Amino acid sequence: MFRTKTCGELRIANVNEEVTLAGWVQTVRKFGAITFVDLRDRYGITQLLFGEELNALLDENPLGREFVLQATGKVNERSNKNPNIPTGDIEILISSFKVLNKSVTPPFTIQDDTDGGDDLRMKYRFLDLRRNAVKKNLELRYAVNRAARNYLHEQGFMDIETPFLIKSTPEGARDFVVPSRMNPGQFYALPQSPQTFKQLLMVSGYDRYYQIVKCFRDEDLRADRQPEFTQIDCEMAFVEQEDILNMFEGMVKSIFKDVKGIDYTDKVERMTWEEAMWQYGNDKPDIRFDMKLANLKFPAHTFPSKESKEQLIGGVDFKVFDEAETVIAVAIPGAAEYSRKQTDELTEWVKRPQIGMKGLVFIKCNSDGTYKSSVDKFYGEEKLKAIAEYANAKPGDLILIVAGAEERTRKAASELRMEMAERLGLRKKDEFKLLWVLDFPLFEYDEEGNRWVARHHPFTSPKPEQIETMISNNPVIENAAEYLKHPYANIKANAYDMVLNGNEIGGGSIRIYQRELQEKMFAALGMDEEEQKHKFGFLLGAFEYGAPPHGGIAFGFDRLCSILGGSESIRDFIAFPKNNSGRDVMLDAPAAIDDKQFEELQIKLDLK
Amino acid sequence: MFRTKTCGELRIANVNEEVTLAGWVQTVRKFGAITFVDLRDRYGITQLLFGEELNALLDENPLGREFVLQATGKVNERSNKNPNIPTGDIEILISSFKVLNKSVTPPFTIQDDTDGGDDLRMKYRFLDLRRNAVKKNLELRYAVNRAARNYLHEQGFMDIETPFLIKSTPEGARDFVVPSRMNPGQFYALPQSPQTFKQLLMVSGYDRYYQIVKCFRDEDLRADRQPEFTQIDCEMAFVEQEDILNMFEGMVKSIFKDVKGIDYTDKVERMTWEEAMWQYGNDKPDIRFDMKLANLKFPAHTFPSKESKEQLIGGVDFKVFDEAETVIAVAIPGAAEYSRKQTDELTEWVKRPQIGMKGLVFIKCNSDGTYKSSVDKFYGEEKLKAIAEYANAKPGDLILIVAGAEERTRKAASELRMEMAERLGLRKKDEFKLLWVLDFPLFEYDEEGNRWVARHHPFTSPKPEQIETMISNNPVIENAAEYLKHPYANIKANAYDMVLNGNEIGGGSIRIYQRELQEKMFAALGMDEEEQKHKFGFLLGAFEYGAPPHGGIAFGFDRLCSILGGSESIRDFIAFPKNNSGRDVMLDAPAAIDDKQFEELQIKLDLK
Repeated sequence: MFRTKTCGELRIANVNEEVTLAGWVQTVRKFGAITFVDLRDRYGITQLLFGEELNALLDENPLGREFVLQATGKVNERSNKNPNIPTGDIEILISSFKVLNKSVTPPFTIQDDTDGGDDLRMKYRFLDLRRNAVKKNLELRYAVNRAARNYLHEQGFMDIETPFLIKSTPEGARDFVVPSRMNPGQFYALPQSPQTFKQLLMVSGYDRYYQIVKCFRDEDLRADRQPEFTQIDCEMAFVEQEDILNMFEGMVKSIFKDVKGIDYTDKVERMTWEEAMWQYGNDKPDIRFDMKLANLKFPAHTFPSKESKEQLIGGVDFKVFDEAETVIAVAIPGAAEYSRKQTDELTEWVKRPQIGMKGLVFIKCNSDGTYKSSVDKFYGEEKLKAIAEYANAKPGDLILIVAGAEERTRKAASELRMEMAERLGLRKKDEFKLLWVLDFPLFEYDEEGNRWVARHHPFTSPKPEQIETMISNNPVIENAAEYLKHPYANIKANAYDMVLNGNEIGGGSIRIYQRELQEKMFAALGMDEEEQKHKFGFLLGAFEYGAPPHGGIAFGFDRLCSILGGSESIRDFIAFPKNNSGRDVMLDAPAAIDDKQFEELQIKLDLK
Repeated sequence: MFRTKTCGELRIANVNEEVTLAGWVQTVRKFGAITFVDLRDRYGITQLLFGEELNALLDENPLGREFVLQATGKVNERSNKNPNIPTGDIEILISSFKVLNKSVTPPFTIQDDTDGGDDLRMKYRFLDLRRNAVKKNLELRYAVNRAARNYLHEQGFMDIETPFLIKSTPEGARDFVVPSRMNPGQFYALPQSPQTFKQLLMVSGYDRYYQIVKCFRDEDLRADRQPEFTQIDCEMAFVEQEDILNMFEGMVKSIFKDVKGIDYTDKVERMTWEEAMWQYGNDKPDIRFDMKLANLKFPAHTFPSKESKEQLIGGVDFKVFDEAETVIAVAIPGAAEYSRKQTDELTEWVKRPQIGMKGLVFIKCNSDGTYKSSVDKFYGEEKLKAIAEYANAKPGDLILIVAGAEERTRKAASELRMEMAERLGLRKKDEFKLLWVLDFPLFEYDEEGNRWVARHHPFTSPKPEQIETMISNNPVIENAAEYLKHPYANIKANAYDMVLNGNEIGGGSIRIYQRELQEKMFAALGMDEEEQKHKFGFLLGAFEYGAPPHGGIAFGFDRLCSILGGSESIRDFIAFPKNNSGRDVMLDAPAAIDDKQFEELQIKLDLK
């Protein structure tokens, strides 16, 4: 061993001990005939003191930043204590030392507030990983891993490894494929998830399975997506939705406790997908703050159970609202005093192409109970008051109203709500609020193919009371214009998403376990019998040999870590991430391969 | 939840409780008006008793094997107890039941001694996994996983995930490659091990890393190899060989304790590679039994430190020995009474192509102290006695002698030793003996290329005292015939293998961490500067920024589990294994992919 102690453990109680440390030179400070060196390792930083004698040696062979140093000496109490670090009470009076390895000058500083840009830090990831900020993220990731495993172990789950070289069955996302040399002309695929395997394990009787496992999706990378990502993947047999919700809110609470020291004792809220869309405009609402949407106008089919409020805005010949499919208001607490400049800026914000609104209507709810709006020409005090009441606005609030086509407008209202919450400081990094979103639609309508696509995946069961509807109806959509009247349009999935602070951290469902229903599902998605057999014959076969009722969930491990770590970026929580083109710039991968490899694999390039 | 109890937990203390169980029908036994059903789940088997009333229902809709059944009833004390199962004292008097799913007749019985052949069981792996024998293996695997993680966690190791989509740098084994759609013409490779990443993590200061991780090698599969396999992969910084040996024998002992309840208190033996080859004829000797090889003759260069014993067998004009490069004897305890038939069979055994010997010489050491050999024509009593003494044979033993070319003969002697131990029952499944094999040669000579290849891998450091030899000499072999005289031929690796019962379960090394030495290593392996830069530029670069001394080890997790489980086959310990052609016969993978996939990946087939 090159050390007897780490750079993080020495305290005042160790004074006079003879110790050997090893680590990296963080800083070198010369004061006349003595030199102070801060030595850093994974555990902390310790100050070394080189006296006069050794100083001469240092003059001959100066220490540089990031040199690897082994140093022996006696622990001294510091005269000049540093209360900011745990080892700040002591220093080591060095008697001998050895440079274990030198370092050229790093391309950026190894500090929390480094001077390195993103690209440089990705290229020299092995140096970026030395920074305390990044190390803390990986430590948190390991703590979450450990906490999840411990909880699942306690609950009787078994970690069972599923294969990585499987069969390509592209549904939705693209598979990465792997040519097989031993089976020329054939390819493996890398798993997008262990979905079918974990279901087979339930058929096999392993009624509580988990795995923390890499998954792969060859998608065009949006910001903060990675081609390889990690899931906490779980499945249970002989359970209903309620059992799974309880089990896994237990897991997340246990992670909160173990990793963050937080006792999350609140009941985890639950909300239907419909309520989430109605009140928040999206299916993963951030419920740390209120600011619910006020639906002034909306197409009848979208929320059949809700009442229209068109009377509040109609009959004044305000064309913007009259011609809009949807009109949604959001009351922003305490923002009535916004200046013209500020409201202009908000208008510009909603007009950005990512939001895509034509403009923004304002109603200021003055603290004296009066109203002032950007549409005073159309709406009198009375009308404004009625709108404000419906929007739950209080004196001092500012009401923002967007109008347009349903989907875009609802999304815009949701984004506006989030943006305003961010500006008002309501999205607190250290506040955590869990939510289950339930009762998703089982299908989405695919206009192009005039057919159904699975919203979650083809293995999700409908609600028990809707199984009969699904089996007894023909999935074919005869009249594209009236697809909403097809019985499948109203089938709800027995599925659930777990949302944390406005991010989907996990999602799952009760699965289909009856061959007949699974075949019906595949048929609904446009798969004929031959295709079903080719792609999923093994699963349909397994369902004939005593498949138990089962269901499960998968958590996005990278995302979960990033939220717990208070960051927006999953990349900061992955040791060796890829960039937005799926490249590892440190390795310079992917890369060309040898002719010999092409020959052995019996493939060639076919570049356009 | 479909159950209130599992099929493994009810005892006499639960009598009179009302319970609901769910599981699979193992057997149905009708006795007149009542029916007994054995219900099975992951946790055990419980007997259900269907009385007269329910019997009528069963007659209408008979239960079949592997039906999934939910049944409610009262726990009864059994009149006819079964002491062989934990639930054998009770049965459930069923009051209501529901068939959750039916099963067609399984293609083989779900029993320990199943009637299903290998192929059938691979195809219906989800049914094979129901068998208790297979379930126990996966439970053991999970226990080993858990024990390893717990130990490593206690020792301050961090699980850090390394990427799966990396760069192809084929050295030795072939890479599986993955075409990149987003980077046309370029390929990722799947990792053969996280070797370079774990070294980078050491450079980054994470001084104790581990991962239980899938690795991939596209090799022609010998029996009991899998294209994807799992490693317990570990690395430490600021350590020397001794530290690693202590840390990881600790891990294996901890696994013995947690998984098998075995206190492995013996010191783990250590042996140099040279001694292992000399005494056992291979580099992973099974030391549960003695039967060391007696080297009667061998080429001088192979064991320069050892004394030749040719005088024992020479000078009698026995051409077989005189003309052989190597002559090795093994004394088999208590086998002197072997019949002619038995010795003939042994001769046939060594003549099989896998062993490749021309014949076998016998010396029977009779219990009266006399000797009888198959070469009495050449060797008198005196000579036989001298050979027997050197071979450590006692009265009653049978000495077997093989002769021929060094490599083949040594291998044959080793295999003969193992075979005889097997026949004598000396390879006990429940006896475990660990061994470290040390001081491997750093290089092997590659005749074809007249160059060096790395025996372990190109990142292994030579012994500290031989670094200078390596750096100061030119690796080029001027005279192929005299390659043994090249200074590189005698360089030993700072490497170690852990051997358990004659199987290599782990191997590792102290790594090179100096750029100059690493470049020299690459050069020795025939890599020019450009190739070095292309393949390992990132690692050479990292070594310039303060790389600490480090080393590590990787355990073959599948193999470790199979040995602890007392099996020869790793396949039995993998949930979804592939066959010898790398196929998953259950999935029918690999398989053809769509035209669209080829088009998107910009590759095409080039079949020969």
